[in-house]
Amino acid sequence: MTPDAMKAHLVAFFDEVWNRRDLTRLGRYIAPDYTIRSDPGDPWDGKTLTRAEFADRLRISCAPFPDQVFSIADLLAEGNRVVADWRWTGTHLADLPGFPASGRVIKTSGVTIYDFEDGLLRGHRQQTDRLSVYRQLAAKD
Amino acid sequence: MTPDAMKAHLVAFFDEVWNRRDLTRLGRYIAPDYTIRSDPGDPWDGKTLTRAEFADRLRISCAPFPDQVFSIADLLAEGNRVVADWRWTGTHLADLPGFPASGRVIKTSGVTIYDFEDGLLRGHRQQTDRLSVYRQLAAKD
Repeated sequence: MTPDAMKAHLVAFFDEVWNRRDLTRLGRYIAPDYTIRSDPGDPWDGKTLTRAEFADRLRISCAPFPDQVFSIADLLAEGNRVVADWRWTGTHLADLPGFPASGRVIKTSGVTIYDFEDGLLRGHRQQTDRLSVYRQLAAKD
Repeated sequence: MTPDAMKAHLVAFFDEVWNRRDLTRLGRYIAPDYTIRSDPGDPWDGKTLTRAEFADRLRISCAPFPDQVFSIADLLAEGNRVVADWRWTGTHLADLPGFPASGRVIKTSGVTIYDFEDGLLRGHRQQTDRLSVYRQLAAKD
């Protein structure tokens, strides 16, 4: 897979899977087992997921922010890996532990290092700005 | 600059500047103006720093953790950019706002995308796991 093909795969994965939540397309993008190698603060950190479990993770993590949208600010590729520098926004429309639905528009960002195998995403390591999400949720109006 | 040369430059920068705190070597590694393009939670986020200001940032950020050590888990390069996936550990030996020195060993991690110009580091975009640092500092023993 060329660097450009890996980048195009990742752009389409963000668009179809994370933004449009078309879970019927998951097999087009991720391997049958997908490993979250490092993702501090993510409930699935360290786990290897089947596609059904990946779909559950997406549904659960999106539930409080049903209109969430990721946009990719930058992509870099080397070998079998692609780094995505992304921005995220979503409206807090359902309850989170300690934070009842507020209707607030929340913004954050992150960097994810994906690895590919046989043309599919095999896993990631990720850092996201969770502290600012917490502060936005906890802020007094 | 080749990808391998950029990676070697970054490894030496972490070692000499961040780990050994040899600020006399700063001109060997960073450009006269260094831009922190995005670094959520960092007090210098969005600023362009002279080398003297970069040295101040390093001294101020290291002060609570005088034995801090960065280790690089992974490096990727494309074009004029290098991505470093790093781990960090330091002992909390001086006061932080709200957190008196505790003697605790704190651990975190981050991913930084550096850009090079004329053989020197010109700036970065970064994500670090600040929420877990906060939780480690705030934890009840």
